[in-house]
Amino acid sequence: MFALILAGGTGTRLWPQSRTAMPKQLLNLGSGKTMMQATVERILPIMPVENIFVATNHNYGSIIKEQIPHMLPQNIVAEPSGKNTAPCIGLAALHMNRLDPDAVMASLHSDHFIADEEGFRQALLTAEKAARDGYLVTLGVQPDKPETGYGYIKRAGTIGDYNGQTVYQVDQFLEKPDLATAQRFLDSDEYYWNSGIFIWQLSTLLNEFAICMPEFYEQLGQLGQALERGEAIEPIWEAIRPESIDVGIMERAKKVAVVPLDVGWNDVGSWAAIYDINKANEDNNVVLGGEHISVNTTGTLIQGKKRLIATVGLEDVIIVDTEDALLVCAKDKVQDVKQVVNWLKDNGREDLL
Amino acid sequence: MFALILAGGTGTRLWPQSRTAMPKQLLNLGSGKTMMQATVERILPIMPVENIFVATNHNYGSIIKEQIPHMLPQNIVAEPSGKNTAPCIGLAALHMNRLDPDAVMASLHSDHFIADEEGFRQALLTAEKAARDGYLVTLGVQPDKPETGYGYIKRAGTIGDYNGQTVYQVDQFLEKPDLATAQRFLDSDEYYWNSGIFIWQLSTLLNEFAICMPEFYEQLGQLGQALERGEAIEPIWEAIRPESIDVGIMERAKKVAVVPLDVGWNDVGSWAAIYDINKANEDNNVVLGGEHISVNTTGTLIQGKKRLIATVGLEDVIIVDTEDALLVCAKDKVQDVKQVVNWLKDNGREDLL
Repeated sequence: MFALILAGGTGTRLWPQSRTAMPKQLLNLGSGKTMMQATVERILPIMPVENIFVATNHNYGSIIKEQIPHMLPQNIVAEPSGKNTAPCIGLAALHMNRLDPDAVMASLHSDHFIADEEGFRQALLTAEKAARDGYLVTLGVQPDKPETGYGYIKRAGTIGDYNGQTVYQVDQFLEKPDLATAQRFLDSDEYYWNSGIFIWQLSTLLNEFAICMPEFYEQLGQLGQALERGEAIEPIWEAIRPESIDVGIMERAKKVAVVPLDVGWNDVGSWAAIYDINKANEDNNVVLGGEHISVNTTGTLIQGKKRLIATVGLEDVIIVDTEDALLVCAKDKVQDVKQVVNWLKDNGREDLL
Repeated sequence: MFALILAGGTGTRLWPQSRTAMPKQLLNLGSGKTMMQATVERILPIMPVENIFVATNHNYGSIIKEQIPHMLPQNIVAEPSGKNTAPCIGLAALHMNRLDPDAVMASLHSDHFIADEEGFRQALLTAEKAARDGYLVTLGVQPDKPETGYGYIKRAGTIGDYNGQTVYQVDQFLEKPDLATAQRFLDSDEYYWNSGIFIWQLSTLLNEFAICMPEFYEQLGQLGQALERGEAIEPIWEAIRPESIDVGIMERAKKVAVVPLDVGWNDVGSWAAIYDINKANEDNNVVLGGEHISVNTTGTLIQGKKRLIATVGLEDVIIVDTEDALLVCAKDKVQDVKQVVNWLKDNGREDLL
């Protein structure tokens, strides 16, 4: 099995810690290692480092080399520009296909948190087995709340037991629901959160590109020739239309399966998630760096730096202190951090993005 | 009339902006001038600058000279060490007495906010007239809420009209009350907040020192002789027992009067007061310095510096951002800022005090 780790995102929901120049996946957000490092270490027990690829943009390549020094330099696949996930997965598939056309690829994200890492590896191995039967496999996260921020997967009947785990046919992929619908999904046992983690045989994937995205499949052929000849891929890449693998392939393909995942998965999509995945102290506060004096403060996240941070009488607040910007945010309003980021974009404040 | 401005306090309730090295009265807290400058400018219409004295400690003398460049250098009275208000007022009285023994002294604080400055000057002129009749006069602030953080003054009958304003005999000074008592005081019209602003003839004051504080009066005589001879006052000063003018004189003296004061007085005793005395913007936030991005934030004070401060979903919060310390505090818990200061003292963190 090969792994592709997608690491090109800018992670604006964790502003001001996450910046364009140093996004979420390259930060240590409490665990002692960066999310990128954690992602690699999580899968190393089931595959050698030579099988691990990273897709990212030119800016992050050198930081990733620093953070994962034993990764093969040629396994860092630089996207000339952001084209969403389908082109990027296709490009990585070309590289892997040259090494072993019979291999299975697991497409992972660099910025997910997993509490039960062994459970996650078992799910990957289960998915690998289903993929060998020709399925496009996704990991579906067992919901534990009526989350409206994720897409959902509805399962159909079983396709069998693999690696001791039941795997289901996918009935359909569903958009982010409203709260009532999300509650109905939660009450049923047939729905999962779409983790965005996919496992497939290279041959199955390339075949699906040919069927579902014929224009891109053609361009992928050109990319492969350019790579063979050692030519620049940029002119071909720039003509590619951006597309997500979800819309481009997964929602259109026929033979799609889901492996249920119940391992404490968190996509770390907000500062509230950072609070959730870290261990709180006796006052129920999470202090990540910096010196904190707490007076009657609870449920609060302190992402400090050099300065002393004193909090008095606070409940459920997010405080993120960086060199040039400070965020103070109600914990139940963390989704609105994007409004700050949008304001900065609209007002040409690239210095703070 | 002479004025003495007491400017020796350290103002820890406005930490982390107010520091030992640069306390509250020497800061610009929103008005564009420092509280010290505002205090001087407030009384300049009714007395020449030569009549204005400042009592402070050695550390603040040079900052005060910078902030009030036209003040006479000899009018900055340096207390060798903090001995509370009575010794400091006595020392200043000696200086004034050499210039004009028939004068009236107004003892003011350097860190009070007054909305109606003309009303304040009129109250001082009223008090001056009552003082010429031999009264120790205090300005009593008309309460507008059941405040438990101030001492109160209970008035007795009138002593007459001065300058067109009724002046009352003081019945008694009262300690900080509990809430029920404060409410009773508010419902009555016989109680005022003790502003700590006093007006008296020098001769009356010195006579009261002789009666109420005979030991200090003796030491005051020694101080006077040392000043005459150009000798150091430190050895005499160090032997003086600390005492407030309230306890030492005002609560013991017989002939005490109160001039009611209704001029938007605020002793700026907390960050909530800073919010109150400044003009809020259209979101009901007060932004003092720094750049602020507000997303659904209201009732909040931002005391910024260089960094951008983004707030999301906050209500009634105090944020004070300084070079080496950050305070985030619920606006109704500002009194607990002293717990932070106490922690810093107890833990030897003079670098942050």
